[in-house]
Amino acid sequence: MLVIKSVPELKQLLKPFRLAGKSIGFVPTMGYLHQGHLSLMRQAKADNDVAVASIFVNPLQFGANEDYSVYPRDLERDSSLAADAGIDVLFTPGVEDMYPNGFTNMLTFVDVRKVTERLCGAFRPGHFRGVATVVSKLFHIVEPQVAYFGQKDAQQVVVIKQMVADLNMNVKIVTMPIVRETDGLAMSSRNVYLTPEERQAALSLSRSLKLAETMLRDGCTDAGKIAHAIRAVIEKEPLAVIDYISVSHANTIEEQERIEAPTLIALAVRFGKTRLIDNMIWEGK
Amino acid sequence: MLVIKSVPELKQLLKPFRLAGKSIGFVPTMGYLHQGHLSLMRQAKADNDVAVASIFVNPLQFGANEDYSVYPRDLERDSSLAADAGIDVLFTPGVEDMYPNGFTNMLTFVDVRKVTERLCGAFRPGHFRGVATVVSKLFHIVEPQVAYFGQKDAQQVVVIKQMVADLNMNVKIVTMPIVRETDGLAMSSRNVYLTPEERQAALSLSRSLKLAETMLRDGCTDAGKIAHAIRAVIEKEPLAVIDYISVSHANTIEEQERIEAPTLIALAVRFGKTRLIDNMIWEGK
Repeated sequence: MLVIKSVPELKQLLKPFRLAGKSIGFVPTMGYLHQGHLSLMRQAKADNDVAVASIFVNPLQFGANEDYSVYPRDLERDSSLAADAGIDVLFTPGVEDMYPNGFTNMLTFVDVRKVTERLCGAFRPGHFRGVATVVSKLFHIVEPQVAYFGQKDAQQVVVIKQMVADLNMNVKIVTMPIVRETDGLAMSSRNVYLTPEERQAALSLSRSLKLAETMLRDGCTDAGKIAHAIRAVIEKEPLAVIDYISVSHANTIEEQERIEAPTLIALAVRFGKTRLIDNMIWEGK
Repeated sequence: MLVIKSVPELKQLLKPFRLAGKSIGFVPTMGYLHQGHLSLMRQAKADNDVAVASIFVNPLQFGANEDYSVYPRDLERDSSLAADAGIDVLFTPGVEDMYPNGFTNMLTFVDVRKVTERLCGAFRPGHFRGVATVVSKLFHIVEPQVAYFGQKDAQQVVVIKQMVADLNMNVKIVTMPIVRETDGLAMSSRNVYLTPEERQAALSLSRSLKLAETMLRDGCTDAGKIAHAIRAVIEKEPLAVIDYISVSHANTIEEQERIEAPTLIALAVRFGKTRLIDNMIWEGK
C-alpha cells in the first residue's frame, strides 16, 4: 500500500490508472478506523481495480465548540488496518495540503439546502457545508468511479447523494450497513471517549432502535408513537441527554407523521462530552 | 460539428476521447454568439484535440427582475458560427436537462465568498452563485482539461478561478482579451438591446477606460482620481446611469486607493433597460 500526503503526487499517481480505464473506488474517512470503515474499504477493493482511502480530520466540518483538536488520531495503526483491508493507496493530507491558504481563508463552499436543515444539521451549524465542501474537493482530487460511505452517518449519505446529483458529479455513491459491537453499540471513532458507565448507557440507542423495528414489524405506522417509545428507552438512562429522535423520509429528511417507507429513524444522544448517533432505515414489510 | 442536447449522451460521446488521452477544451456560453465568443472557440480548437462549446441561458444566474426571458437566442445562427470557429461538439441543453427537477428545486449551490461581494455581485444578488453552480455542473459534465472565458466578464473570471482552486477542480482556466467593435464598444450579446442613441452613448465606457489608461501610463497612482475622471466622461451622457466604477486588485477584487498592479478597472452602466459592463486590467508600466 502506498501512503501519499501530497495532492499533486496523488493526482500524478492515479492518472495512468484512469487513462488505462481502471476503475477507482474511494473511501473518505477521518481515520481512527474501526470495522465500519474497514467494511467500506474491503468493498471498494472487491468492486474496483484500485482502492483509495483518505484519512483527513477536516477542520471545516467541526463547530467552534466541537472536538476537532481532540478527535482521536492514530495514523500508524490506521495504515496497517487499511493495508489489511486491501487499500492500494492511502491519502493522508495535512490541513496545509487540503487548505493551502489556511482553512479559515477558504472562499468556496458547497452548500446543500433542505436535507441539511434538520437532525444533525440543526445541532451542528455549518457541519454539512464543511462535509460537502471537503468531499467535493476529495472527489476532484481522487476522481473515483465509486465512493463508499457508512449508513451510520445517514444524513451525510443523503447530503452527498444530493450534491452528486445536483452538480452532475461523475461518481456513484455506495452505502454500507452500520457495523455494531457484539452488544449492539454502533461502531464509531468517538466510542473511545466513553467512560465504562457511559458506554453501558449508550447501549440504549441500539436497544431503542430494536424496539422501534419490532413496533414497525407489528404494523405501527404512527411516527409519534415510535419516537415516544424510543425516548422512553433512552430516558431511562440518567447519563443520556437527547439531541433529537427523528422519524423522516429516508431520501428527503422530511418529517413523517405517518410511516411511509423508506423511513429513516435517527437519533443523536450525548453521554457526557460524547455525542453519539445511530439510526435504522425501514424499507417496509 | 455534433449538436447534443442530452447530458448522458454528451458524457457518452466524450468518454472515449478522455480514455484515449485526448485533451478537451471547453467554452461555456449563453449563446447569441459574437466575435468575443468566437475568439474563445478558435483558441479552444487551436489548443486541444476536441473543442466543446455549450449554449445554455442559465436561469439560476438571473435575478427576478433581470432579462432571462428576453435574453437573445438564435441557435441556428450560433450553430453555424460555432462550426465555423472549429467547435467539434456543441452542447445545447434545455433547462430540463440541466435542472431535471426544475431549477427552483435545486438544493446544491457553489458559493464563492469575498470576490463575489463587490461590483456586479453587489448589484446582482445570487448572480455569481448561479454562475459558479452552473459552471461547476458543466465542468463535471464535459470534464475539460482547459476552459476558456472572456475577460469582458472580469469578475466572473476571478470567481471561477477561485472556485477551481478552492475545490481542486481538474481544469485550467484560460482568459481571452475583450473583443471590441471598431468604434470601441465591447462586444456583448446584450448590445442588441441598445437603441441607436443608447449605443452612441455607450461608447463613453470604452472612451473612459482609454482615458484611465492614459492617466496610468502618465504615472497616476491615485485610484480616486482615475475613478473621478471615468465618471466625468460617462456622466456627460444623459442616457447613462452608473451602477459602479471600481478600481480594485485584479485577483481579489479588493478596492485599491493607490494603484498597485495588477489592477482591475471595471464599470457597469445602464442605458435604458440595458446594463453594460466593461473593464481593463492594468499590469503596470
